[in-house]
Amino acid sequence: MDDVFVLGGEKFASRLIMGTGGAPSLEVLDQALAASGTELTTVAMRRLDPASQGSVLDVLRARDIRVLPNTAGCYTAGEAVLTARLAREALGTDWVKLEVIADERTLLPDPIETFDAAERLVADGFTVLPYIGDDPILARRLEQAGCAAVMPLGAPIGSGLGVRNPHNIELIVESAQVPVILDAGIGTASDAALAMELGCDAVLLATAVTRARRPELMAAAMRDAVGAGRRARLAGRIPRRRYAEASSPARDRSDPMGG
Amino acid sequence: MDDVFVLGGEKFASRLIMGTGGAPSLEVLDQALAASGTELTTVAMRRLDPASQGSVLDVLRARDIRVLPNTAGCYTAGEAVLTARLAREALGTDWVKLEVIADERTLLPDPIETFDAAERLVADGFTVLPYIGDDPILARRLEQAGCAAVMPLGAPIGSGLGVRNPHNIELIVESAQVPVILDAGIGTASDAALAMELGCDAVLLATAVTRARRPELMAAAMRDAVGAGRRARLAGRIPRRRYAEASSPARDRSDPMGG
Amino acid sequence: MDDVFVLGGEKFASRLIMGTGGAPSLEVLDQALAASGTELTTVAMRRLDPASQGSVLDVLRARDIRVLPNTAGCYTAGEAVLTARLAREALGTDWVKLEVIADERTLLPDPIETFDAAERLVADGFTVLPYIGDDPILARRLEQAGCAAVMPLGAPIGSGLGVRNPHNIELIVESAQVPVILDAGIGTASDAALAMELGCDAVLLATAVTRARRPELMAAAMRDAVGAGRRARLAGRIPRRRYAEASSPARDRSDPMGG
Amino acid sequence: MDDVFVLGGEKFASRLIMGTGGAPSLEVLDQALAASGTELTTVAMRRLDPASQGSVLDVLRARDIRVLPNTAGCYTAGEAVLTARLAREALGTDWVKLEVIADERTLLPDPIETFDAAERLVADGFTVLPYIGDDPILARRLEQAGCAAVMPLGAPIGSGLGVRNPHNIELIVESAQVPVILDAGIGTASDAALAMELGCDAVLLATAVTRARRPELMAAAMRDAVGAGRRARLAGRIPRRRYAEASSPARDRSDPMGG
Repeated sequence: MDDVFVLGGEKFASRLIMGTGGAPSLEVLDQALAASGTELTTVAMRRLDPASQGSVLDVLRARDIRVLPNTAGCYTAGEAVLTARLAREALGTDWVKLEVIADERTLLPDPIETFDAAERLVADGFTVLPYIGDDPILARRLEQAGCAAVMPLGAPIGSGLGVRNPHNIELIVESAQVPVILDAGIGTASDAALAMELGCDAVLLATAVTRARRPELMAAAMRDAVGAGRRARLAGRIPRRRYAEASSPARDRSDPMGG
Repeated sequence: MDDVFVLGGEKFASRLIMGTGGAPSLEVLDQALAASGTELTTVAMRRLDPASQGSVLDVLRARDIRVLPNTAGCYTAGEAVLTARLAREALGTDWVKLEVIADERTLLPDPIETFDAAERLVADGFTVLPYIGDDPILARRLEQAGCAAVMPLGAPIGSGLGVRNPHNIELIVESAQVPVILDAGIGTASDAALAMELGCDAVLLATAVTRARRPELMAAAMRDAVGAGRRARLAGRIPRRRYAEASSPARDRSDPMGG
Repeated sequence: MDDVFVLGGEKFASRLIMGTGGAPSLEVLDQALAASGTELTTVAMRRLDPASQGSVLDVLRARDIRVLPNTAGCYTAGEAVLTARLAREALGTDWVKLEVIADERTLLPDPIETFDAAERLVADGFTVLPYIGDDPILARRLEQAGCAAVMPLGAPIGSGLGVRNPHNIELIVESAQVPVILDAGIGTASDAALAMELGCDAVLLATAVTRARRPELMAAAMRDAVGAGRRARLAGRIPRRRYAEASSPARDRSDPMGG
Repeated sequence: MDDVFVLGGEKFASRLIMGTGGAPSLEVLDQALAASGTELTTVAMRRLDPASQGSVLDVLRARDIRVLPNTAGCYTAGEAVLTARLAREALGTDWVKLEVIADERTLLPDPIETFDAAERLVADGFTVLPYIGDDPILARRLEQAGCAAVMPLGAPIGSGLGVRNPHNIELIVESAQVPVILDAGIGTASDAALAMELGCDAVLLATAVTRARRPELMAAAMRDAVGAGRRARLAGRIPRRRYAEASSPARDRSDPMGG
């Protein structure tokens, strides 16, 4: 399929972006990443020592997976901007997944701090991918501010609740000129497929795979689910109907289409 | 994956059962069946002339896809039993997808007639696969009556409404000793994945593919979605949580797992 | 409001039918029944000694609430028919809420036994009110068999899950010529309002009130919710829209309707 | 019931706040307001001529309903602040329902402009009641900024889609120290009851009543639904259970609780 995902000017065959948190070991993570087919994986800068050996960065380098640093653990625009700059210096990329979290309990993003940080990072030349709630207007404002994508949540990080408000995701997709990446809340394969069917360009997930009972198998499920959802979107689904429509309206026995 | 689907003593690698109704042409149907990877396809006996050339049966034979005759168009137990016997004679199989429909508008199955017909067909040596509503007790009674599987609907035929009552499907799965095949109502890929995640052994669909804007592409989506849902079921999804769980609870910078 | 509920030829001002199970004491039950405004309450024959003093029957007589005996605890058509006859003799009523349960764990009704018992009880002159799943076709068959109402569940007894499949309840309502009473599954006030908005003629509930933390207060909530749902149904709700519609499209300052 | 709703230091017996838009005539509006029992009604300043006769203000004055001016029609913080000041001067109240809308099609609120305007209006001594999306963190930030309540939407204005994301409303309620008023999206009575059950302190609606087929009857339905939802919240609902719980676990015939 000639269906390439373009993000920040780069092309990707896979529409599944992985996070690295939650894996019981680097070996399990490595297997899961391989099974997922991902080409882009996000890593929390504040919990990483880029110079250390045996880190998640080694795993990604060995698999030739592009690293997307994120600002997880930052609570203010200032912290996030600083963290993004450290990431740029350490990893040699101006891409950043912008996360400004409001509290430990919900890990929900702070819209005001996120918007502030996004404006500053865009001005500083970053390719900014902000993690946000599912507010269609905030998504639009961030796009207008120069972000390279918007990353609305389906549900809180690690909740596994899926896409809580499909209507908002659809509103975001309808209006966006930049890629929409469903980030956070995915619990299982059908959640990922649904996100793609709603028109998202990609899905980002971590714990749904790394904390599944069998991470590698779930990674393969997610790979196929994202592909299935994307194909279903492109294939043009049947409309929803209140009543039945016979799959075989023709009634004469000689109908060559049978049943 | 060594995950074989056993139905009526036969083994199948694919868990996607196709119907043939609704396709705009035999050629489109043929392409869709190929893309779906199905190994078992149901055909309405009452709309079929087994002796004719260029029928759907030729397509199935050419693809080496097993034919499952159904009794679509029957409104009473008597009609369904008669139709099953004609199918056995014409097609040389004692498998039958038992459909006894109550009316044209909803195409919903009649539980009383279906149960009556199932008892008679089991007594007559058929491998009976009854299409039913999502009533967990009716499913159990049909299993006790000797049916080889139960085929609850997700929603009315052709409605594309997906799995309307996941709770009932879960109750059916928990209690069933025979395969549970989700039949009718599937609209898009995530519906099929969800059905498998709920524990169904297979999914049957027709119009979701044949009446999609691009049937072949939707068939491929369904193939992957069924596989993804099955893998997700086996992989053991994370629990749903009200609150967040950080994907990276470890906070020290030297954490080798990064983010 | 001149909106009378007619059931079995009798008129009721209240559309809330209560069950009596689950109350911590007769006194609490009495207060809850009073607060509910109910005029019809169902009592399980198999757990009742009609001759005893201080029973639930005394409470109902003192409040002038009509008794509707039910066959809870019956597992076969034969048991249910026998229990209905005992009730007729003991209580002097030919009304019976027909319950034929399949198992202890789900308390789900058995469609085959229920249909069998309903036919026998109708033939024996009873006013039969059968408790069933939410299968639209079974509801229709029971109406055709002469039942005076149909009582589909919203969800399993005591589950508090509300109306699991509103689509099925709507299909039942559209087709029924007899009253449709939503029975079982109600957890809170909005569930009861929704059932009425879907077009049900009445709601039956027990544990949602008797096992609430404050039964009397919940009974008052249910009374108002059933009334609110009924009025909303009659008032003709606005259509659902994907997009906004301003409540004040007029824009000139002199608009007398303000905002 | 001694359950008073306190907003901005004022006490209200009714928890239903009405809007005035959408009514076919002042007479219909008057009847609907009376039937709703509301004590507080919002009016769009930009569409109002306070000096005119026969306006909505006369209706409210005659019914002794408190006026809550709103800034509907404003697209920037600056416009909203100006409109609030005009309202204060014209109507002699420092209460303002703050609306800063992003576009005509969705009428969704702009979180950035709203937050900016709220800070300015609080500094200027207003009692600020901001209309927002259902973002729990934005709600918290507005409370921290000194707003007297938060008014998250259930769904877009006029959509009638109800509470799209109950999980977010629950998160807002759990964290808020100021009243939470569900604003926008209500379509029917059960939506209003649900909002109150989720813990909202009040509900604001307009078109659900004014554009219903029978506005006065729907207003009465909403009055009862808000009361029912509030009582159900206070009464402490039963937990949701996967399986049944018999309403009558006691099984001996001498059980005084009957069935």
